[in-house]
Amino acid sequence: MGQVNSSAQRRAQDEDGQVEVLPKGIHDSSTPIRVGLLGVGTVGSQVARILTEQKEELQQRIGQPLEITGIACRNPEKVAFPWIDKTLLTTDTKYVATHSDILVELIGGLEPARSLVLKALESGASVVTANKALLAKYGPEIYRTAEEDGVDIYFEAAVGGAIPLVRPLRESLVGDKVTSVLGILNGTTNYILDEMTTKGLDFEVALKDAQAKGYAEADPTGDVEGEDAANKAAIVASLAFHTPVSIDDVTTEGITNITADDIALAQAEHKVIKLLAVVVNGEHGVSARVYPALIPDNHPLASVHGSYNAAFVHAQAADDLMFYGRGAGGAPTASAVMGDIVTVARHIVQGGTGPQISMYQNLPKAPLSTSRAAFAVRFRICDRPGILAAISKTFADHNVSINGINQDLKPTPHDPGYSGEQQTLRVVTHQCNETKLRETVEDVCKFDFVIGEPSILREM
Amino acid sequence: MGQVNSSAQRRAQDEDGQVEVLPKGIHDSSTPIRVGLLGVGTVGSQVARILTEQKEELQQRIGQPLEITGIACRNPEKVAFPWIDKTLLTTDTKYVATHSDILVELIGGLEPARSLVLKALESGASVVTANKALLAKYGPEIYRTAEEDGVDIYFEAAVGGAIPLVRPLRESLVGDKVTSVLGILNGTTNYILDEMTTKGLDFEVALKDAQAKGYAEADPTGDVEGEDAANKAAIVASLAFHTPVSIDDVTTEGITNITADDIALAQAEHKVIKLLAVVVNGEHGVSARVYPALIPDNHPLASVHGSYNAAFVHAQAADDLMFYGRGAGGAPTASAVMGDIVTVARHIVQGGTGPQISMYQNLPKAPLSTSRAAFAVRFRICDRPGILAAISKTFADHNVSINGINQDLKPTPHDPGYSGEQQTLRVVTHQCNETKLRETVEDVCKFDFVIGEPSILREM
Repeated sequence: MGQVNSSAQRRAQDEDGQVEVLPKGIHDSSTPIRVGLLGVGTVGSQVARILTEQKEELQQRIGQPLEITGIACRNPEKVAFPWIDKTLLTTDTKYVATHSDILVELIGGLEPARSLVLKALESGASVVTANKALLAKYGPEIYRTAEEDGVDIYFEAAVGGAIPLVRPLRESLVGDKVTSVLGILNGTTNYILDEMTTKGLDFEVALKDAQAKGYAEADPTGDVEGEDAANKAAIVASLAFHTPVSIDDVTTEGITNITADDIALAQAEHKVIKLLAVVVNGEHGVSARVYPALIPDNHPLASVHGSYNAAFVHAQAADDLMFYGRGAGGAPTASAVMGDIVTVARHIVQGGTGPQISMYQNLPKAPLSTSRAAFAVRFRICDRPGILAAISKTFADHNVSINGINQDLKPTPHDPGYSGEQQTLRVVTHQCNETKLRETVEDVCKFDFVIGEPSILREM
Repeated sequence: MGQVNSSAQRRAQDEDGQVEVLPKGIHDSSTPIRVGLLGVGTVGSQVARILTEQKEELQQRIGQPLEITGIACRNPEKVAFPWIDKTLLTTDTKYVATHSDILVELIGGLEPARSLVLKALESGASVVTANKALLAKYGPEIYRTAEEDGVDIYFEAAVGGAIPLVRPLRESLVGDKVTSVLGILNGTTNYILDEMTTKGLDFEVALKDAQAKGYAEADPTGDVEGEDAANKAAIVASLAFHTPVSIDDVTTEGITNITADDIALAQAEHKVIKLLAVVVNGEHGVSARVYPALIPDNHPLASVHGSYNAAFVHAQAADDLMFYGRGAGGAPTASAVMGDIVTVARHIVQGGTGPQISMYQNLPKAPLSTSRAAFAVRFRICDRPGILAAISKTFADHNVSINGINQDLKPTPHDPGYSGEQQTLRVVTHQCNETKLRETVEDVCKFDFVIGEPSILREM
């Protein structure tokens, strides 16, 4: 415990080692505000750097100095950033969590992050976190705890990295009614889809390339299956609609079934494929989904390239808004964390908190059975006579109206598993019920002429 | 005075008619927060509508009800919005300014707006304003007064309409170092330039079209000469760099000299022309400028069409960010005003204020003589032998290095004042000192073969 260097000697320490936090707003201007860090990886190390290198400027912006009083991590002995004072390093996460005015949680995951964040809030500390999984699962509990304890919980970095999105939803648009948010909120998948588009690569090749360049992790599941974006969708939906939406409410499709063919077909129609996180407050209730969508190439989201993220927000009065920027990376994410630290610190100096996150509505979740859209479904088939008739009939039997079928497409040479007898067949539907569409696709896949997995893309 | 319908009878009113404002943070949850409106035009009427129609939802978001207690305007008898209670209307701006908890100033202009805002702040009211001219001129005085009186001054709507830009600069990026902001912050000029681009129109034609469609005012000077964007540049620079920047510090060029030729020449180089507000914190100090610029057509700002606005922000850690949305219009601007009202109201409920706008730096203003850029200068000339030599020599004499000259361009048929003997000549320079460039252009314009005004475009 001795590693934690607290210069805040004015604080009385009782026998349990509990530190008595002074009432807010009465700190004098020379008293440092104690910042504790949990985690010192890509983001944490950058936060520590900015806190150290810009100490004086930050003090001027806040009115009191910030002081790192403890950095908890798994292997303190391996931390070798020149700007980090090694005496601050400790493995004692609990001590740091309960001996800070501002706890910055950057360890990620559900536990021990949840317990530590709750402990910190209960000890009277405000919390800044970038932990999307935590908030998507336990957001309401954490927000409620912060409110009950009269402290702040800020998490701009949890969604869209450096892009100010949480704060605009929480504050700027709070006098308006947000009706939908469409976000490109996962940089890895956007990079992969972009590479597939510009270089004609297939998914597997583009993924390997992204891994080689550090844009995708060794285990890319969380990104390419859409789970990362789903966590962000849950957080965004909760904020936008003032109603609790958990990761368990989000339906998620990833991009692993998308082929170079799909991209080429989209391009021919002046469209691009993007993995969207879509949250809507509609007539049947709130929905939060992640799926690959076909977007017209003149839509602002279509020009979000590489690992950039963006969120396209529609509100009743504000109309369309878009926020664009770096969705990941050490320094950009640290920028968002720093903005939150300064905001929270100003509240401490002033004696107050920011707006609490009130889930004052309990809107129904729109049942999946009410979901309607136009779809483009791509099958891979072994060509033979009668296929078109069989597929058309299956769609008709399910009452799904077809807008067009394209069978004479040559598969691209990049298409894996391709042999001369195989072909790509694509059905574009009119607006239809999604459940029916999925049942139709399932039935079509029972035919022995269908090879592998189809791709199902939604028209935006 | 009787017109002002204040139901807030708990407030003691002394003999001068001064209302005693209750200490913040001790209001009980049923006590309405008094909102006074100055101005009930396009924006004010929409603010009144949202305050009325979404009363209950706003109360839930804030924790206390908002109540419009007075609306001051020039001609109350002419106000006929069905949602506005006519008994609230008055011409007594001063009374409304000093009898509100939140004053919403939407009358625009310098006076009486300045006096009324200062009076309101001094009376203990927080102020929400959309008045860019006021803040660009008197911002520091107003921010200081708000800080001294412990109240809020919020003005998201003053820059970029519905786009959250002020709040991100004020809060989200406050832990980072903003180095530049490039903004398309005037919808009228963006609409005109867009029409010129897509329809090949000349400036005068596009302006008339914009006026007919309500995108430009009868007197378009403030927009097309860049003054409106200059006001916003001053506000943005102050916020971004924490240093006072006034409208008097902004150098401004408009778009009136831009012709269909200029647009066509830009398009041939895969560039678009946009009127940019550019604020930079550079090695020679802070600069704030408005000028028409050549932007590569794959830059995110190039796809900002019609009357949309956008701001492209670069910060040290966050890297590039863009904010996009409706920069004007009643409902979108009202959305920004409403976000501010709710934010300020929450502070009143909580007993505190948001971050004050501290101009803790006094950075030098970069002298114009240090400005460097590459330029594209388009002259209209009466063609005759020796012109190219004369112009080249003038550039050389001023030590401005030429990257390319294009003389054999056919003027477009849309070019006003064109006759068969005239031609367009365009000089593109390397990076050069702007003062030297302007002296060069001035000297070239002394030749009798130069007709009318040249256009000077800056490469982004």
